[in-house]
Amino acid sequence: MIKIGVIGYGYWGPNIVRNFNRLKSAKVVAVSDSNSKALSRVNEIYPAIKVTANADELITSADIDVVAIVTPVSTHFELAKKALQNGKHIFVEKPFTRTSAQAEELIELADKKKLLIMVDHTFLFTGAVRKIKQLIDDNVLGSLYYYDSMRINLGLIQHDVNVIWDLAPHDLSIMDYLIKDKPVAIGASGKGHVNNREDIAYITVQFSNNIIAHFNVNWLSPVKIRMTLIGGEKKMLVWNDLSADEKIRIYDKGIEVGNREGVYDMLVSYRTGDMWAPKVDQLEALQMETEYFVQCIQSGDSPFNDGQAGLRIVKMLEACDKSLKKKGELVSL
Amino acid sequence: MIKIGVIGYGYWGPNIVRNFNRLKSAKVVAVSDSNSKALSRVNEIYPAIKVTANADELITSADIDVVAIVTPVSTHFELAKKALQNGKHIFVEKPFTRTSAQAEELIELADKKKLLIMVDHTFLFTGAVRKIKQLIDDNVLGSLYYYDSMRINLGLIQHDVNVIWDLAPHDLSIMDYLIKDKPVAIGASGKGHVNNREDIAYITVQFSNNIIAHFNVNWLSPVKIRMTLIGGEKKMLVWNDLSADEKIRIYDKGIEVGNREGVYDMLVSYRTGDMWAPKVDQLEALQMETEYFVQCIQSGDSPFNDGQAGLRIVKMLEACDKSLKKKGELVSL
Amino acid sequence: MIKIGVIGYGYWGPNIVRNFNRLKSAKVVAVSDSNSKALSRVNEIYPAIKVTANADELITSADIDVVAIVTPVSTHFELAKKALQNGKHIFVEKPFTRTSAQAEELIELADKKKLLIMVDHTFLFTGAVRKIKQLIDDNVLGSLYYYDSMRINLGLIQHDVNVIWDLAPHDLSIMDYLIKDKPVAIGASGKGHVNNREDIAYITVQFSNNIIAHFNVNWLSPVKIRMTLIGGEKKMLVWNDLSADEKIRIYDKGIEVGNREGVYDMLVSYRTGDMWAPKVDQLEALQMETEYFVQCIQSGDSPFNDGQAGLRIVKMLEACDKSLKKKGELVSL
Amino acid sequence: MIKIGVIGYGYWGPNIVRNFNRLKSAKVVAVSDSNSKALSRVNEIYPAIKVTANADELITSADIDVVAIVTPVSTHFELAKKALQNGKHIFVEKPFTRTSAQAEELIELADKKKLLIMVDHTFLFTGAVRKIKQLIDDNVLGSLYYYDSMRINLGLIQHDVNVIWDLAPHDLSIMDYLIKDKPVAIGASGKGHVNNREDIAYITVQFSNNIIAHFNVNWLSPVKIRMTLIGGEKKMLVWNDLSADEKIRIYDKGIEVGNREGVYDMLVSYRTGDMWAPKVDQLEALQMETEYFVQCIQSGDSPFNDGQAGLRIVKMLEACDKSLKKKGELVSL
Repeated sequence: MIKIGVIGYGYWGPNIVRNFNRLKSAKVVAVSDSNSKALSRVNEIYPAIKVTANADELITSADIDVVAIVTPVSTHFELAKKALQNGKHIFVEKPFTRTSAQAEELIELADKKKLLIMVDHTFLFTGAVRKIKQLIDDNVLGSLYYYDSMRINLGLIQHDVNVIWDLAPHDLSIMDYLIKDKPVAIGASGKGHVNNREDIAYITVQFSNNIIAHFNVNWLSPVKIRMTLIGGEKKMLVWNDLSADEKIRIYDKGIEVGNREGVYDMLVSYRTGDMWAPKVDQLEALQMETEYFVQCIQSGDSPFNDGQAGLRIVKMLEACDKSLKKKGELVSL
Repeated sequence: MIKIGVIGYGYWGPNIVRNFNRLKSAKVVAVSDSNSKALSRVNEIYPAIKVTANADELITSADIDVVAIVTPVSTHFELAKKALQNGKHIFVEKPFTRTSAQAEELIELADKKKLLIMVDHTFLFTGAVRKIKQLIDDNVLGSLYYYDSMRINLGLIQHDVNVIWDLAPHDLSIMDYLIKDKPVAIGASGKGHVNNREDIAYITVQFSNNIIAHFNVNWLSPVKIRMTLIGGEKKMLVWNDLSADEKIRIYDKGIEVGNREGVYDMLVSYRTGDMWAPKVDQLEALQMETEYFVQCIQSGDSPFNDGQAGLRIVKMLEACDKSLKKKGELVSL
Repeated sequence: MIKIGVIGYGYWGPNIVRNFNRLKSAKVVAVSDSNSKALSRVNEIYPAIKVTANADELITSADIDVVAIVTPVSTHFELAKKALQNGKHIFVEKPFTRTSAQAEELIELADKKKLLIMVDHTFLFTGAVRKIKQLIDDNVLGSLYYYDSMRINLGLIQHDVNVIWDLAPHDLSIMDYLIKDKPVAIGASGKGHVNNREDIAYITVQFSNNIIAHFNVNWLSPVKIRMTLIGGEKKMLVWNDLSADEKIRIYDKGIEVGNREGVYDMLVSYRTGDMWAPKVDQLEALQMETEYFVQCIQSGDSPFNDGQAGLRIVKMLEACDKSLKKKGELVSL
Repeated sequence: MIKIGVIGYGYWGPNIVRNFNRLKSAKVVAVSDSNSKALSRVNEIYPAIKVTANADELITSADIDVVAIVTPVSTHFELAKKALQNGKHIFVEKPFTRTSAQAEELIELADKKKLLIMVDHTFLFTGAVRKIKQLIDDNVLGSLYYYDSMRINLGLIQHDVNVIWDLAPHDLSIMDYLIKDKPVAIGASGKGHVNNREDIAYITVQFSNNIIAHFNVNWLSPVKIRMTLIGGEKKMLVWNDLSADEKIRIYDKGIEVGNREGVYDMLVSYRTGDMWAPKVDQLEALQMETEYFVQCIQSGDSPFNDGQAGLRIVKMLEACDKSLKKKGELVSL
């Protein structure tokens, strides 16, 4: 039985506790939060779980194998480091850390201690992303042309980070997971209307090959849109995460480029065929992720959403910050 | 009776001819096109209109007051210049010219000759854009925060221009019309998959104040989307040009920023109220535009979509080209 | 503190327990269910609540003021009667009873015993229905023309009732609540494909005045639709219960009937104006309903969704059954 | 060259003239209309076509092979009879005639004279209906369960017929075409709000087997909906005629009925799989229909949308009228 301590019981913490707790080979034994009301809520629902205002108690407890860190990003590094030093595997909320240097230090420490890091890139475990991953890996889309994502809403404006650090980790981690090629440069521009931090931002990611990626993140939209277009040579795909039943649509549409004999101009023609919406597994993503982490701990295998994956995202976020300061100039990765 | 000669009877020309021709105080007297099939089609529908393969005939005809130039952009300058030199008012397809120097030369020439230039920014005459203009001018939206537009489709790939020169003139001219403040810098990034010209591009426009604008244009999308979000301090608006009945939706949504006494953090709260979709006039835009041009000629007044308006758009397109070459770096306007 | 016993902890029971339990002036003290697994689930979440497989224990307990009956409709009458005989107020799942005679007997018994009956027509407490009620009562729609409802899905086929008894109570109770006039006759037709019970049915309700109502209920639809159109002389309304943000849309559309002088034909013209989507309260309906029942018990006032309301719906359901047997013939109410 | 005379140049006539006229082996030689403005419009567009206010001229002209009757239904019989008597093939607007007796008389007369009748059930020639026909004939849907259609709009209220005679011929003719089994009885109910004629109506059609069909037609709806659901044992289909790109969606959804050993209850389980939207041919339906009629005349074969097809629809419309008078009672066909 793997014993888990959870630090942070705010917006996301309850989901972490609920999902780890329903696994057969794991249980949550302690929760810490500085907010006493949060701890009362834990008590009500899970009388068996110990609660404490002091995260250190949990980190140093001999009774705990895994520490899940579900707190604001600015606190991740210190908590994670202490947990690793105390021999705990760590499960860390996204984004992994505030800087890539912090991420690298944690990765090195975990390596040395032979401990596992999982960064909570929950979306990678949704039925939709797993289905898209399979379609790309099976070459259904063909060679990729572009990845274009929009995640906008009248959103909860964060006080400590801008809209990129809040929303883009979802989409950057999905892109990182789906596209084998690695990005070479990133540009970002945005504007802050409420305070100095950007509440609207646009990110463009360049690859060394044919692919271009783009991310539109916005806290000030009157409508909620979570849509990603992925264009390939053979097929094109629209992922509408807000659709109840048909999240993924695959279009047999594209362009065919030929060469007319003796003619300079290329011959470009259009192909429009059927559309197909495959059934998408509706299991809760966090259930799959927590189960997978426990399996990794049991087997000793590193998860694919490990510290390195977390680091790749943090590097892109850092590059965005740099590019924002340089007014959109491309920043190499 | 104002007499009009139309150069170019390809995709858009027939609409120009049909609309000028149904006005009471104007008529199309001649059409030229290098394609004889196009001229046969003119003959079939309008036996009274003269046709010619030679645009010069039309430009130099004493019987013509206005020359409408509905040809590829690379030919605009030469044709327009000759028409002005021959004392004709000109109606020019968007984008106005291939370079801002050309646009400036045409404006100067028209001024000297006391002739009018109208650039065919058709969208400015749609019921939707006129309604949005009125809402902004009446301060219904309040101080503007952002303008975010998406115009994507499996589109006709042009052989002579990239996707920005093809699609963005629509949206840049609408932005130019709606927003009183003038942009100060522009950044663009994109990728070409079919040939060297960009078939996907993202444009960011910076203003000296709070506003940010963004344009997503794409010829390789499996779905057709024409959507613009305009966020204001008081209200937010979504314009879905593909909606049959409710093109414009105004949301009483926003954020309210206050200051809690004795607290560092700002107090940000959210306001979500009713949505309202005003009725939008469904008259054909080109009918209004052609009528307006005839009125301008009769009154001698310069239209608001004059050469200067055309020049402002060409300057932005040029800046996009420059930014593309500099990999997204901001280019001052 | 009002003490509540809940009979039935299957699909809907957990919602009833959760909502009664979070009220300040009420608490659930006991739950009965014949299924021991259901009782274990109660134990897990609410260790303080007594559980029993024997509903009679709960009905006869001196410690209980209200019995909530959340069991299949065929069992309602017997349980409700016993509960009233034992001096308990009753909260009964919809539809109230299997026959109108049963409903009448329960109403009479409750009257004699001065006990309250609430029938769980939950939808009447949703923000959407309350908003529509207000719009109709404020005469925003004007005199009503029609009520047309569609509730279709790939649904859980019930073994004991047909699709009308399963789905239509929602819509019939909403119609009964919204429209002051009372229906005079009802016709129903349908077909059963899986067993002898109808899995698809169409109901038409006639009123003594201008109004017509229609209900389309279907367990075999590949798509989920919950849509109601309400047409009035002044405005028309579409209620899409599956829309996240804009459940209710009010259209300033209609027909204007005039008389041309000296002409036989009426002059009919069309009015199409703005659309408006008022903000709809998103509170959980069952929370409002349970709170309201507790208030009714405290004040002694009969709720508007009392036994009489339940009886009216049962009478319509009975009439549907009769009409189905007569192949759609109208049955007087 | 087949020569065609068209009677009636109101709303639909221009489409008939345009489509017959662009065929290679046919041409429209004359158009009649009592409205002189209509005739001027013909002259403007087709200077070569003779126009006349007198339909008889056209019917008795030796120069005409086919008379197309595009007038209100009340005039169909007389015009069609005279045309057949004068040896002309006839193309008649839907609905074929005002009574089934009239339809039968025309069929008999055409038989005797060896002339062809085509009833303009245009929808049968749309890409969508042809695709659905093919799916049903190929047994993709399996044995059919239901056909449920909604055709509602803020519609042009007709002065001479009710909403059933105006809108339902479309859907009844499509059902008649798609479903091999023939209906045995029909029930209809409705209400008129503007005049005595029904502006809202609901039709139920019973078959001798498992199938049930239903039609919702409404002239007073604030929203335009044209949707048909077709449920089969193996697949289910939604046809949304207002969707630009995905008019037909086929759902791999259904119920599977088994029998548990030794258990009374049937075991019903649900199957939800992929959705698939086949490409639908976008050719203009009327172009295909007019071409097909000319081919029929050349080959002497009777079209599938012949007088008998027209008669079947008129019989259903008559039965609807009877059922309306009997307040929804089923009327045998």
